[in-house]
Amino acid sequence: MNPVTFEITHICRQSGARTGILHTPHGDVETPMFMPVGTQATVKFLSPEELYEMGAGVVLANTYHLWLRPGEDIVDKAGGVQKFMNYHGPMLTDSGGFQVFSLADTRKIKEEGVTFKSTLNGDMLFLSPEKSIQIQNKIGADIMMSFDECIPYPADYEYAKKSMERTLRWAARGKTAHTRPDSQALFGIVQGGDYEDLRDYCAEELAKMDFPGYAIGGTSVGEDKETMYRMVRWSIEKLPENKPRYLMGVGAVNDLLEGVSSNVDMFDCVLPTRIARHGTLLTSHGRINIRKAIYADDFTPLDDACDCYCCRNYTKAYLNHLFRTNEGFGSRLMSIHNVRFLIRLMEEMRTAIKEDRFADYKKEKLASMQFDERGF
Amino acid sequence: MNPVTFEITHICRQSGARTGILHTPHGDVETPMFMPVGTQATVKFLSPEELYEMGAGVVLANTYHLWLRPGEDIVDKAGGVQKFMNYHGPMLTDSGGFQVFSLADTRKIKEEGVTFKSTLNGDMLFLSPEKSIQIQNKIGADIMMSFDECIPYPADYEYAKKSMERTLRWAARGKTAHTRPDSQALFGIVQGGDYEDLRDYCAEELAKMDFPGYAIGGTSVGEDKETMYRMVRWSIEKLPENKPRYLMGVGAVNDLLEGVSSNVDMFDCVLPTRIARHGTLLTSHGRINIRKAIYADDFTPLDDACDCYCCRNYTKAYLNHLFRTNEGFGSRLMSIHNVRFLIRLMEEMRTAIKEDRFADYKKEKLASMQFDERGF
Repeated sequence: MNPVTFEITHICRQSGARTGILHTPHGDVETPMFMPVGTQATVKFLSPEELYEMGAGVVLANTYHLWLRPGEDIVDKAGGVQKFMNYHGPMLTDSGGFQVFSLADTRKIKEEGVTFKSTLNGDMLFLSPEKSIQIQNKIGADIMMSFDECIPYPADYEYAKKSMERTLRWAARGKTAHTRPDSQALFGIVQGGDYEDLRDYCAEELAKMDFPGYAIGGTSVGEDKETMYRMVRWSIEKLPENKPRYLMGVGAVNDLLEGVSSNVDMFDCVLPTRIARHGTLLTSHGRINIRKAIYADDFTPLDDACDCYCCRNYTKAYLNHLFRTNEGFGSRLMSIHNVRFLIRLMEEMRTAIKEDRFADYKKEKLASMQFDERGF
Repeated sequence: MNPVTFEITHICRQSGARTGILHTPHGDVETPMFMPVGTQATVKFLSPEELYEMGAGVVLANTYHLWLRPGEDIVDKAGGVQKFMNYHGPMLTDSGGFQVFSLADTRKIKEEGVTFKSTLNGDMLFLSPEKSIQIQNKIGADIMMSFDECIPYPADYEYAKKSMERTLRWAARGKTAHTRPDSQALFGIVQGGDYEDLRDYCAEELAKMDFPGYAIGGTSVGEDKETMYRMVRWSIEKLPENKPRYLMGVGAVNDLLEGVSSNVDMFDCVLPTRIARHGTLLTSHGRINIRKAIYADDFTPLDDACDCYCCRNYTKAYLNHLFRTNEGFGSRLMSIHNVRFLIRLMEEMRTAIKEDRFADYKKEKLASMQFDERGF
């Protein structure tokens, strides 16, 4: 029995977009959903209670970071990452592959795995499909990711093909290495760069391995939006309908709308928390930079359409003050707002899908929100 | 009618220590009490709800800091500091005098007031009794403090006398300048260095001015503990029994016990939050430095005798991880713990007083807690 299962609850008659429920050992979550990132077993500045209140379902943690600190054995001894950080909802760990990818200067990729330099202390480290799964088994999240190679964009066809084939072999090796299939679900990752036949092939081969869920990898690596949307559509085409799809590292407003259009069910991104800490807020009237002097005596909430703890209780003037004085409570309040903004966006999308008007909703949303082409 | 009044509820038959209730426009608070410091209109990392939950009554804000950022006019426009920061309990502002004192290198003290350099941008600034009260009136806390000169220790008799007499004149000028006596209470501050006759005289003169409360100033400026306790006792001797006494800037465990012995009702200190951010925690078993490697796999709470949110939900191993990874949530959790520790200490003291066993309690507490001579 798979510990994580997926159920489609509605398909929008106007757009084909879908809602669903992801059943996990730590509870059910409605899809499409946005997953906040808790890199080091903490969503920066926020408590689990704040995450529950804002409607966060799955929270992501980073295998690479937890491997380095505190080490997977500590998390294992704590009883898993949820007990360690006191988050009672579902969690997901990435494979470490993306962090390795981002260290292009120092890494060496071989069939066996990847050798690279620690960003913490310069030590030489080695990650392989087996090692990644072993670490993720100890971290103990509900959902784990296959160890893959995330290639840059653009990449030539031959390299993309070779790498994708290796990613498939790594997926199979990870599956074999997985020691807790009854309590943790392992997802496969579709790679293949910007090549339709490679994406097709990768998805088909992964589908044969029968993973309980599939991610789309290798996007948000420098490609333009149209290319990214194409990669997503190609990846999904050959994936089984009844399994959840997860678009990794994507959280811009336009990308979320487009992803849901293409039947993506899960998204994660550091964007809302990272930009919040720099004073950039997502609102129903567009992007706000709270450090601006005009907000110093603006006693209205960040977003009059928002129901978050920050908007219910604090003014732009106070946030401007906290930002200018570099107070942690400002990062906390603004992170709450930005994450809630994206979670609320997903709630709205689910409602629009259930009411068979997602195509209209998407069009209106894109027209009414004054974000730039980056989607924030 | 004074906006802030004080009522003695019990005098310990064993020790003479007292409990009371401070009535303020923002609610009643039991004394003796510890007041957390929210320097820039935020108790670093903490929400008002967390402060309520840990039993915080009065929260202190710093006039000097709010004057510089965001400026008293912004706080005034917000409807006062409580509305600005969304804290519904009572608040107190200091006068800015202590911050000016700590800038000994750049300041010039005259009868009119003090000229000094801004710590933010080097601008020349001027604070006087009138200016301090004007700022505090705009900040709008329930309790304001007279602008005083805090002299260093040791100080020669002549200087201590001259300065204390000026502080008395400044207290009278501040009282005259106070424009909101119906909604904000102004406390006087006893100075006089380590000279009994000066402390006596200052207290008597302030008492004649009939302030609704009195602070003991000029302590914690380098003197040894015995000297400090002596200053406190001398200051209090001539103060009216039925008015609250506030020992400024004091929050070490032994000092709180000693202060309550001497009939001090109110204390404040940045100590619990500042040391928490550096990983130093106050527990019923003594001081803990959370960065130590032995805590990396210690899955017990910080303090098994503590009822705070941190101790109810998190382990030393998790706090060690958050500290080592420099995560704001660690500062948040550890600040909650340390402030709650001192608030709980005050609760215990009140209970011991009401049960007429405060002398025994104090003795046992000092013997059983493994803090060093600094009291933390």
